[in-house]
Amino acid sequence: MRITALAGGVGGARFLRGLLHHARQTAAAAEGRGAADHLELTVIGNTGDDITLFGLRVCPDIDTLLYTLGGGIHEGQGWGRADETHHLAEELAALGAEPQWFTLGDKDFATHVYRSQLLGQGMPLSAVVERLSARWGLGELGVRLLPMTDTPVETHVVVDDGGDQRAIHFQEWWVRHRAALPAERFVVAGLDRATPAPGVLDAIREADLVVLPPSNPVVSIGIILGVPGVRDALRGTRAPVVGVSPLVGGRPVRGHADVCLRTIGVEESSAGVAGLYSDFLDGWLVDEDDAMPDRRGLEVVRRPLLMSSVEAAADMAGATVDLGMRLRAARATA
Amino acid sequence: MRITALAGGVGGARFLRGLLHHARQTAAAAEGRGAADHLELTVIGNTGDDITLFGLRVCPDIDTLLYTLGGGIHEGQGWGRADETHHLAEELAALGAEPQWFTLGDKDFATHVYRSQLLGQGMPLSAVVERLSARWGLGELGVRLLPMTDTPVETHVVVDDGGDQRAIHFQEWWVRHRAALPAERFVVAGLDRATPAPGVLDAIREADLVVLPPSNPVVSIGIILGVPGVRDALRGTRAPVVGVSPLVGGRPVRGHADVCLRTIGVEESSAGVAGLYSDFLDGWLVDEDDAMPDRRGLEVVRRPLLMSSVEAAADMAGATVDLGMRLRAARATA
Repeated sequence: MRITALAGGVGGARFLRGLLHHARQTAAAAEGRGAADHLELTVIGNTGDDITLFGLRVCPDIDTLLYTLGGGIHEGQGWGRADETHHLAEELAALGAEPQWFTLGDKDFATHVYRSQLLGQGMPLSAVVERLSARWGLGELGVRLLPMTDTPVETHVVVDDGGDQRAIHFQEWWVRHRAALPAERFVVAGLDRATPAPGVLDAIREADLVVLPPSNPVVSIGIILGVPGVRDALRGTRAPVVGVSPLVGGRPVRGHADVCLRTIGVEESSAGVAGLYSDFLDGWLVDEDDAMPDRRGLEVVRRPLLMSSVEAAADMAGATVDLGMRLRAARATA
Repeated sequence: MRITALAGGVGGARFLRGLLHHARQTAAAAEGRGAADHLELTVIGNTGDDITLFGLRVCPDIDTLLYTLGGGIHEGQGWGRADETHHLAEELAALGAEPQWFTLGDKDFATHVYRSQLLGQGMPLSAVVERLSARWGLGELGVRLLPMTDTPVETHVVVDDGGDQRAIHFQEWWVRHRAALPAERFVVAGLDRATPAPGVLDAIREADLVVLPPSNPVVSIGIILGVPGVRDALRGTRAPVVGVSPLVGGRPVRGHADVCLRTIGVEESSAGVAGLYSDFLDGWLVDEDDAMPDRRGLEVVRRPLLMSSVEAAADMAGATVDLGMRLRAARATA
């Protein structure tokens, strides 16, 4: 089964790790019945919050996906490497280098140094991600990770700083100010002239199921949808598109999706998020207690949406796949 | 007293640390007599063995000077930082990044990341070195460190690899092959069009004494002498030029100066090295047992040339300064 997912950072990565866990369980059970169906997972990762720090190109969402799926993530944080030291960053601080609000560990720095070297040699980001994926053994897991685009894209936030409007990098707003600085709007530099990375559109068109994990609908999935061609591919694919709401009771489980929705003038609710995807969404998982009005052509499933463990994430991913398969079967018989 | 030194890496750095130690001792004694003479030391550092690794600009000699004079050096190695970890390099190795024969610690990496960022922004190397010098408190020590040039210069070694001649970077020859691969010649790319960094020529012209520490005469001091204008400044300065032989009994105390001399067809002896400096050298310290024929206009002093401790290096530097002062006094009365 070919599943294609559009993913941001922590939430997307944890959901997809759950999906792999679920697929292994299902495959083990199916092998007992002699009917194993191998999962081929293509992940289209957001690069909209990429940033250049100390002259090095940092791709926070791509790296969180690599580390989480490859088994190197810092579980407590959700981002960065496990068993990490920060000697390089401490020395950069001693040198007076800015910024100091973005935490980069020594092992993590290696990813950025390596990526920056290859990009500097003219290698496209997608080829760099392929190399990083090999280091993390994603191929052996049946996972192909693609950046949404090879075109450098950066999200900036226009903030109101005591009456003065100025644009700061998304990471500065998100990490340094914890999304607490009043945001007027998001400006995604480079997005309108970005082209989907090789394989992105085909992965959507040729999938058996397209999944939207509970990633931020504005600054993660919303950015991927803004890459010219991606939204059309989602509208045109014959695969069902099933999403998982990132909100529980109108609040994000993690991150600041509510603030992001407010900024773009969309209701902070599962219904509000579904509205952003209304032109291509077929199935929608929402939390048990969430209000979600019926909408023609949208199959809603209610269930707990907490990813408190790999097993819980696997259950959630399993429910997503089940809904997708149900929609597929319904189409086949229609 | 204004002293200007031309220096390579470990040997030069240890000698100059000894010189600072000597100056502090002398100043303390002189203050007791109410006649303190402050040392202003300008160090012109070799950049001929600079190398770009993982897309980062590494200046081995400059950094050894910074770390040694600033108190951050790994004493046992003579290069790199004390209390160093290697997590970044281990991760680069896991990524399959090359080369793996050049050791870079996590703190050391910060220097290279910072320098590369500033160079990438268009800052000249001399301005970067000024910033690094501030971090290491060189100004407080009365030291001004200048790279010999802001022009990127790289030494390559033409080696005979089983009948095949090929050029490899000096560091690959020096570090990876420990100078054991037969060398045909050195090629210093960029040297003929290099211009001395701001302040270099004036520091030589306006010094009270010019010192050549026991650095490699071919690939350290020899490269600095190759920067257009430097040799003329040494010939023209009114300051005495006093050097310390890097050889004891025809062998280098450290490094592979003998192999380098052989490669350029110069006798592996203190006399051979002095011959390389004959057009500007006024005083020459050689080891007690070293043969050193009399040469018109060259004052030779014999003494032990081992820098087994900071105190020993200070003694050696003191003897160098004494010889320089003697030559100055003789000129003044001539």
